[in-house]
Amino acid sequence: MSRIVLDAVGGDHAPTEAIAGVALALKSGFLRPDEIVLTGPEQQVRDACIAAGVASDIEIVDAPDLLSCDDSPTEAMRNKPRNSIAIGIQLVKEGKASGFVSAGSTGTVVAAATLGLRYLEGIRRAAIACIIKGEERPFLVLDVGANPMPKAHHMAHYALMGSAYYECQFKTDNPVVGLLNIGSEALKGNPIVRDAHSLMQGLPINFRGNVEGDELFTGDCHVVVADGFSGNVLLKVSEGVAEYLLRTTLGAMMKAGVSKEQLQAVKKAVMPRVDFSEYGGALLLGVEGYVTICHGRSRAPAFANALRFAHQAHAGKVNEHIVQAAKAFNLSGADEGGSPATAPKGATNEENT
Amino acid sequence: MSRIVLDAVGGDHAPTEAIAGVALALKSGFLRPDEIVLTGPEQQVRDACIAAGVASDIEIVDAPDLLSCDDSPTEAMRNKPRNSIAIGIQLVKEGKASGFVSAGSTGTVVAAATLGLRYLEGIRRAAIACIIKGEERPFLVLDVGANPMPKAHHMAHYALMGSAYYECQFKTDNPVVGLLNIGSEALKGNPIVRDAHSLMQGLPINFRGNVEGDELFTGDCHVVVADGFSGNVLLKVSEGVAEYLLRTTLGAMMKAGVSKEQLQAVKKAVMPRVDFSEYGGALLLGVEGYVTICHGRSRAPAFANALRFAHQAHAGKVNEHIVQAAKAFNLSGADEGGSPATAPKGATNEENT
Repeated sequence: MSRIVLDAVGGDHAPTEAIAGVALALKSGFLRPDEIVLTGPEQQVRDACIAAGVASDIEIVDAPDLLSCDDSPTEAMRNKPRNSIAIGIQLVKEGKASGFVSAGSTGTVVAAATLGLRYLEGIRRAAIACIIKGEERPFLVLDVGANPMPKAHHMAHYALMGSAYYECQFKTDNPVVGLLNIGSEALKGNPIVRDAHSLMQGLPINFRGNVEGDELFTGDCHVVVADGFSGNVLLKVSEGVAEYLLRTTLGAMMKAGVSKEQLQAVKKAVMPRVDFSEYGGALLLGVEGYVTICHGRSRAPAFANALRFAHQAHAGKVNEHIVQAAKAFNLSGADEGGSPATAPKGATNEENT
Repeated sequence: MSRIVLDAVGGDHAPTEAIAGVALALKSGFLRPDEIVLTGPEQQVRDACIAAGVASDIEIVDAPDLLSCDDSPTEAMRNKPRNSIAIGIQLVKEGKASGFVSAGSTGTVVAAATLGLRYLEGIRRAAIACIIKGEERPFLVLDVGANPMPKAHHMAHYALMGSAYYECQFKTDNPVVGLLNIGSEALKGNPIVRDAHSLMQGLPINFRGNVEGDELFTGDCHVVVADGFSGNVLLKVSEGVAEYLLRTTLGAMMKAGVSKEQLQAVKKAVMPRVDFSEYGGALLLGVEGYVTICHGRSRAPAFANALRFAHQAHAGKVNEHIVQAAKAFNLSGADEGGSPATAPKGATNEENT
């Protein structure tokens, strides 16, 4: 079943931009109307579709409980069970859709997905995997915030998942995997990262060792493994510095009397490098289905990309590749007495996200 | 005693650039020759001084054991006890100097300082405090790498130290203090950060709450508290993104046919914003004396700034301010049963840095 559910009311500019994203996706032809399902308060979503001139035969599944930014993940799930995120995940769980796209609260999406969907065979924690444009090639960072305090073996799982995913997504054999750390030597960092380093050396991946924050954009790593806390810091600091510096530079250019045409040319060349929405969102790896998390401020092109993205992940059987990779790890892990611990009782990522 | 020791052989471009930095500092007049002490292999340092035309009456304290980048902090201290860092710290310990500046290995400087110098009264861990140019004002981030896995009360100490330091350095009353986290709500992040948040709310500082990575450069925080791991990620990612983006933008400008003069003007306006050496280094807060850590790739101006920086910190009595602030915290901490734990036996930051 290759249908993608879109949370029509998630994000700062929903539903207008979400529905405009659907229109874009349909226009580009990579999705048919019967491959999209929308969730949200039915009438509101229908009105937005009409306003955007989007085909009236797109299925809308009513999710009357509208979330606000003040709802914590727990409150959202407890007090507003029929919200657009919960309903969307439910459709994936029931096999009625292969993926779910939302620009709503990341914490709520992660909570709903990790509570509602099963972990992939051999995987104990989910990770948000974000693709960033580097200088020479895109690189994948995971986890950027699903679990802010993982154990070392969770991070080893991230490495396996990231490697398998990158291989599928970019048709790259043996992608280079690095571990985000604060120095190049194996003994750098904190105990968790040191243990993760040691576990990752035993994995059937192309492990390069530690990678530092200043090497990410220009270095040769395809996959960067991080705990969810520093991965999130990495992502947000990158965004913040890029925006700040771009604004400063454009200001300096105007002051230096650079022509409008030249300014536009520079903008056009540089903007895509700092627009992290180009790849259309971050996959939540480790759970069944293809849950794609978009930036809260996503606009139509980002929504359209995310729909394509989830669709491609399904078509590329990313999860099957991950399960294969995890099997290989469990074997080698058992050999070395390093087989992953069982997840703690009742553990979910919920309270951490 | 306002004398600053300079590690003449630490850094990628030492001793040449270190000594050129001394020449700059002397020329600018903020330090007299008798206020500077150099450490390193005596003849090598003397030759570099002669080559740079630096006054021959500057004291050189022989440190014959030359460190290489392959020496871990432990190896450096154990196998090369008469290295320039150990000797420099020893001079501070003996009260023969008030500060020490080095562009050598950060880990070795932190290890030597935390082993050799006493913690300030009321402080249990040292933190590297780095000043970064923001959009509206400079902001201080600590810790950027001395302790990659602090406890919550260490981070509360960082907040006190950072606030006191910023107040001295920038003559700002009640600087705004934020806690680096991955969301704005108090319950975000991992347990350590959540506990730190709760402790910081009880401190006699202007605590703003959580701050995220994308708000640092444009936001209103003067002081950003972070664990040494994510603080280091923050710093290095900032450097990496800034360099990458600047190069990309300048390339795009050339391609767009911007004139050489305009290119130079833009460079001149933007470069200081991404040159983190402008403030001359990062103070290791929490220990006696003014230990200043420079970037490994420091050049003469960075060394000169660092000398001035250490000198100013001494003149401004930064450490006395910190001790005063820590006293206030210990009182309120005891009231709330939150008085800091004793440092674990034999604990040093050494193995972590």
